[in-house]
Amino acid sequence: MSLGEFELIRKISRFIKWGNSIELGIGDDTAVVSVKDGKLLLTCDALVEKTHFLTDWRELVEEFFFLLGRKLVTVSVSDVASMGGAPLFSLITLGVNSSFKEEEIDKFYRGVSSALKDYNLSLVGGDTVRSENLFFDLSLVGKTPSDFMLRSGAEPGDIVFVTGTFGDAKGGLDQFLKRKVTDRYLVERFLNPTARLKEGQAALSLGVKCGTDVSDGLVFNLYTISEASEVRIEIDLEKVPLSENLISYCGKERALSFALFGGEDYEVIITAPEEKRGELQKIGFKPIGRVLKGSGVYGNGKLLPKKGYDHLKEEQL
Amino acid sequence: MSLGEFELIRKISRFIKWGNSIELGIGDDTAVVSVKDGKLLLTCDALVEKTHFLTDWRELVEEFFFLLGRKLVTVSVSDVASMGGAPLFSLITLGVNSSFKEEEIDKFYRGVSSALKDYNLSLVGGDTVRSENLFFDLSLVGKTPSDFMLRSGAEPGDIVFVTGTFGDAKGGLDQFLKRKVTDRYLVERFLNPTARLKEGQAALSLGVKCGTDVSDGLVFNLYTISEASEVRIEIDLEKVPLSENLISYCGKERALSFALFGGEDYEVIITAPEEKRGELQKIGFKPIGRVLKGSGVYGNGKLLPKKGYDHLKEEQL
Repeated sequence: MSLGEFELIRKISRFIKWGNSIELGIGDDTAVVSVKDGKLLLTCDALVEKTHFLTDWRELVEEFFFLLGRKLVTVSVSDVASMGGAPLFSLITLGVNSSFKEEEIDKFYRGVSSALKDYNLSLVGGDTVRSENLFFDLSLVGKTPSDFMLRSGAEPGDIVFVTGTFGDAKGGLDQFLKRKVTDRYLVERFLNPTARLKEGQAALSLGVKCGTDVSDGLVFNLYTISEASEVRIEIDLEKVPLSENLISYCGKERALSFALFGGEDYEVIITAPEEKRGELQKIGFKPIGRVLKGSGVYGNGKLLPKKGYDHLKEEQL
Repeated sequence: MSLGEFELIRKISRFIKWGNSIELGIGDDTAVVSVKDGKLLLTCDALVEKTHFLTDWRELVEEFFFLLGRKLVTVSVSDVASMGGAPLFSLITLGVNSSFKEEEIDKFYRGVSSALKDYNLSLVGGDTVRSENLFFDLSLVGKTPSDFMLRSGAEPGDIVFVTGTFGDAKGGLDQFLKRKVTDRYLVERFLNPTARLKEGQAALSLGVKCGTDVSDGLVFNLYTISEASEVRIEIDLEKVPLSENLISYCGKERALSFALFGGEDYEVIITAPEEKRGELQKIGFKPIGRVLKGSGVYGNGKLLPKKGYDHLKEEQL
């Protein structure tokens, strides 16, 4: 296909009908719609066989479909988390065929169910269709009382903060692509990430205006902030948080590359004025850089490439 | 797969977390969630390559992807229509690959856009993923001010009413399966059905308690009412509305079979007391039978089989 996802989103935006109550349509982490007692956040995310996972990974990891069920919920909750909202209701469309065994359906829904519980979210319905390739699509309705964080909310002078560590998910995926699981922690970080719901809500309640989550890669998602906010972002590469497991798994240099350009970490990036640093650090945010006038994303002074993350292509870092 | 869709839905229901505000979860046309100023209706429907359509049908019908875009919107709106509600917002997940050309994406979204306009509905966001098989999944948020129609609302003594004509969609599909389009009207009824939004809302405003839409076949969907309401339903086969086009296309006997067991008509079935007959007929509902104590669905006194409709299997009627 000649169109990348982001190009396609722009294309689609032309067809969108905007109503009065729609505050934000396609292009940020979630759509935002005004209702009487606040704002609804609407988002959907799909996991597709041969794009996001291979069915034979079930042979490499016990409870594979349980973890995939958890992941399906988490990736959409992460979108709501990065806006500072809370999830409410979800719908799941299952595209399934006879390769998906009854006990695996059970496992998958147990995973879904356990993540719903973690994030205090309800599954209210869905559709089940036959599909040659498995796919799972979750739509989520969330809410915020009034305000929310946006990619376009960064201001020159802000500090860039992040949750968690980066590159672990790519370290997990890497093991699947090599068909050998040697570090279960990294595999869990890939299949069973954590949506930073509390951190997102806490940041919003501190008055933070700018947030997004890292689904496509740290640098790529910093670019989405840089472009939406029309600012330059500089990060200090030595401050990008890396896990000990990732460094052990692939060495420090490669770990940094995974962290910058690997996707699916589902950590949250925010930008906020210097005076909020103390409070933000208390709730787990770590400073990694700053926002300046200008454009582009820089690491230790060098322009970083805006590389998208393409899930199952092995060597792209 | 050993599980049919309805079995799977039952299975899934076990995993559903019910909150206080959830009035109705999996198992009716939409989920219903209470909010401050009314109720939200939540539903999703997918169209999947090789299950609901084949990509080479684009060679048989001009504007194929335009019509498919319209259909994607219509099938979900139909679920809301059958509850008596109004659609508000939608999200679309696109699973696409290089076989889906840029001009076809345009056509598809023009179709989506024209249907959104018809039903006064907004597309607010979505996800785009790579998928070996094309799929389109639409989630819809609708509302009703307070009440809604349910499959479980039928009472002995009610009359069974329907909108439109039946079997046309199967007559359209039949032409695709034969790879020769001879009756464009029927093809349009298959690819470009009408969601009976006004009729559903009018019925609800007249106090009608029971409604569903016909996605799986008239008899199959009558069974969903019969089972949810614990009643017997009798229909007069000669009263089942058939189009002239369908009768010309395949003869009266086969037309009736298409009407009873073909799916995807997206007409609305309601049941209501005799005294509402006049008003319901004025807004286009036609009586085809009655609700009695007991169980099962009968045509001219004979028990009708509960046959599901399996989209692309040619000879099942």
